[in-house]
Amino acid sequence: MSLRNFLRTYFSSNRKMRQAIKNIFGFYPGNIFLYKQAFRHKSASLNHKSGSRINNERLEYLGDAVLGVVIADYLFRRFPFENEGFLTEMRSKIVSRSSLNKLSNKLGLKDFMRFSNTDIRQMKSVGGDAFEAFIGALYLDRGYHFTRKIIIKRIVEVHFDLDQLVQSEISYKSKIIEWAQKTRKKHQFQVISEETIKNRKQFKVAILIDNEVIAEAYDYTIKGAENLSAEKAWSLLSNNS
Amino acid sequence: MSLRNFLRTYFSSNRKMRQAIKNIFGFYPGNIFLYKQAFRHKSASLNHKSGSRINNERLEYLGDAVLGVVIADYLFRRFPFENEGFLTEMRSKIVSRSSLNKLSNKLGLKDFMRFSNTDIRQMKSVGGDAFEAFIGALYLDRGYHFTRKIIIKRIVEVHFDLDQLVQSEISYKSKIIEWAQKTRKKHQFQVISEETIKNRKQFKVAILIDNEVIAEAYDYTIKGAENLSAEKAWSLLSNNS
Repeated sequence: MSLRNFLRTYFSSNRKMRQAIKNIFGFYPGNIFLYKQAFRHKSASLNHKSGSRINNERLEYLGDAVLGVVIADYLFRRFPFENEGFLTEMRSKIVSRSSLNKLSNKLGLKDFMRFSNTDIRQMKSVGGDAFEAFIGALYLDRGYHFTRKIIIKRIVEVHFDLDQLVQSEISYKSKIIEWAQKTRKKHQFQVISEETIKNRKQFKVAILIDNEVIAEAYDYTIKGAENLSAEKAWSLLSNNS
Repeated sequence: MSLRNFLRTYFSSNRKMRQAIKNIFGFYPGNIFLYKQAFRHKSASLNHKSGSRINNERLEYLGDAVLGVVIADYLFRRFPFENEGFLTEMRSKIVSRSSLNKLSNKLGLKDFMRFSNTDIRQMKSVGGDAFEAFIGALYLDRGYHFTRKIIIKRIVEVHFDLDQLVQSEISYKSKIIEWAQKTRKKHQFQVISEETIKNRKQFKVAILIDNEVIAEAYDYTIKGAENLSAEKAWSLLSNNS
């Protein structure tokens, strides 16, 4: 490629990204290089002369924290009479990996991404990671207040239905994990047995707190049995405290 | 107490808190009621007419997120060539419960706190929780930029030695937990056996990833054996990836 063609392609790709960000999020980026980095998967890392690798992982770390505080703040004000357990749970529903992956697909962020090969493109979590990295880039580019406005006006209020989220099913497993972390208890979900009944596998899962079994449950998937056992455990714990 | 005395005591306690915050953090609070709420332990909750209880738990939830992003941002800029694993670990060292409890004791925050009784005052995590709630109050009172300045200039740069933190011992257990959460693997630490050798108990702990034992270790405490097994597991995982 001649230098002239290289430069043309290069600046035209920047222009396209600027325009796409304007279309999706409603603003023109200042420093386009931050956003290009946000969409660079680690499989397509560049090498920096310091020896470090340039990709979107640092921005993802930053964006995750920025998103966390903006959503925390938003829910804090939106639900003035709810306790912190409710707020924590609502936030998890919004910023969970699966929620952010869905959001990223809806916004079409994968189209901007650079990977080493297309297999990686198929990986689910790539989308949510890229969204977080985008938020990190936005924060560095335009600061906290602007980022907060974009997250609330262009993301939360457009793509999330809070009333429906309040109703949506609770993961008892995450409640137990959160409780265990908060109270510094050791928790384990353990598959106790696996039986095939009428050609269908059934799993028995136990939940252990500080090495003692406190509940058990059966289901056709490990995940299902875990959540059922967690629900039993949760009802025990709630009655005790 | 006469109304006059009540009012005198009331305003004098507000004045004391204002002055103490100025002495410790270098600024006069605007809305003192936010800070009073930050120092109200749940055991001394007030009842709101909505039925909700007024204490520092909501502010703690908010402050935890604010602290998270300010430290993430600070480390991001301070260590431009380190990867996100390093940044995550450094942040954990700063905002861990034990680190914040120590900080809170150093600052003397417990002196402001309201409890239902003095037993609760002795609980370790009360200090760290109050510090986070204070940060939540500060954020609502003075906004993001001011809060960021206070955290960096009056907390991080005064009370933390980053060079020493870089060197400080790594918890392999937290590395494993973090890795498992990131890669969505199931992890368990399991006490396999407990033997008394020469009048001293020795524990054998196994670490299971997706229900398979990948490392085992012995130590005189469960915690020690867990960390040793995690260290072995970590070295296996690092060689594989």
